[in-house]
Amino acid sequence: MTTTVDNENRLSETFAALANPTRRAILAHLARDEATVNELAAPFELTLPAISKHIKALERAGLVTRGHLAQYRPCALDASPLAEVATWAEQYRPVWEARFDRMDDYLGRLRSQRVTEGHDD
Amino acid sequence: MTTTVDNENRLSETFAALANPTRRAILAHLARDEATVNELAAPFELTLPAISKHIKALERAGLVTRGHLAQYRPCALDASPLAEVATWAEQYRPVWEARFDRMDDYLGRLRSQRVTEGHDD
Repeated sequence: MTTTVDNENRLSETFAALANPTRRAILAHLARDEATVNELAAPFELTLPAISKHIKALERAGLVTRGHLAQYRPCALDASPLAEVATWAEQYRPVWEARFDRMDDYLGRLRSQRVTEGHDD
Repeated sequence: MTTTVDNENRLSETFAALANPTRRAILAHLARDEATVNELAAPFELTLPAISKHIKALERAGLVTRGHLAQYRPCALDASPLAEVATWAEQYRPVWEARFDRMDDYLGRLRSQRVTEGHDD
């Protein structure tokens, strides 16, 4: 059975894996197509061991799976943890929408004030 | 001007700040109401300095702001970075939905196979 603690730990692992621009770029590449480690390394000024380390971090977080072809072992994206990230973030939508509404109101008031004062340029 | 590199770095900071269950619990508390450091520390078996360290990490990521009342300095949630997290994760929705559809198809085929074979129990 999956406990709340397991869920919380998995979410922490996912967020930690996503806290790096190279790892996010690897996921963007894999969203288009499977790729070998060599193909994934090509756009980056990084050594193969450095890229392999990033891929291992993504594998541990369940975001990347590896094929079983002995020589190439292509990497593929598993986006399920990202569905959990989206669900987690979406629970805060009412908070950020309320804030954006307040900013709109404030800017609206500033604008009408400028019109009233004849600064409408 | 905000560059892509700035955006990427900010997103990395947000994800790093979210990669901890205590920090996520602090955000959940602040989504309900502002709170002082003492109030935030109450539900956790953590020292005040440990909680303060978590709050500082959330402040650096722009997720928490502090009031200016000298003695209490209540903490408040700024959910704007979470809107960026949701937008970032949502771009992968087609990928996870395709995967969940394939799983549905597979389970549907398994089920109809069991019915055909007379294992429908």
